[in-house]
Amino acid sequence: MTTAVPAAGSRDLPHPAREEIRLEAVLHALSDPMRLRIVRELAAEGGELSCSHFVLPVTKSTTTHHFRVLRESGVVRQTYRGTAKMNGLRRAALDDLFPGLLGSLLAAAERQAVRLGG
Amino acid sequence: MTTAVPAAGSRDLPHPAREEIRLEAVLHALSDPMRLRIVRELAAEGGELSCSHFVLPVTKSTTTHHFRVLRESGVVRQTYRGTAKMNGLRRAALDDLFPGLLGSLLAAAERQAVRLGG
Repeated sequence: MTTAVPAAGSRDLPHPAREEIRLEAVLHALSDPMRLRIVRELAAEGGELSCSHFVLPVTKSTTTHHFRVLRESGVVRQTYRGTAKMNGLRRAALDDLFPGLLGSLLAAAERQAVRLGG
Repeated sequence: MTTAVPAAGSRDLPHPAREEIRLEAVLHALSDPMRLRIVRELAAEGGELSCSHFVLPVTKSTTTHHFRVLRESGVVRQTYRGTAKMNGLRRAALDDLFPGLLGSLLAAAERQAVRLGG
């Protein structure tokens, strides 16, 4: 049996394989203002950012929840590097499954932020 | 005081004005498989469809809930015509606020439906 998930050490976190990612889950993940903000920052960064990089106006446990939703929906990949939990957008997977969607979503979020002065 | 909502009769349903529509609410509305299916059918139709047109594998009250979420997020406009509640996509508003987004979302939904045989 083959699996798209790499061989897991005990600290590896579960991720959906590319073909398991569902549009509805991606949209749900992006339907929260904090999660949308995280995704915009990751897109602007282009690489990985640690969870602790993000200073959000919510509790630490809520922040952890938001990253879990993003990971379980297939929007971000979370990887431990030493003691840091790093996050990166799964751009290749999302662009392959839904060409153009992530770009449209980020453009819409940017446009709204400008419009609302956010 | 002016308002973007037309003068309301007692049977008119509340809708967000164009400038009140939020990306997060639109994405939440589309994050449910039944609501995504409704929006795809409305897009394919191009015009209005009555609630009773949709035969969904959920209860009538759940169907009513889904249409309310779509209306309150600004995705559809609901209008009474006699005894029928008609639904139409708010394409102009969405395209104005988020150019290209609705098209990308519909394309992504279509692509996923083909991929999963839905």
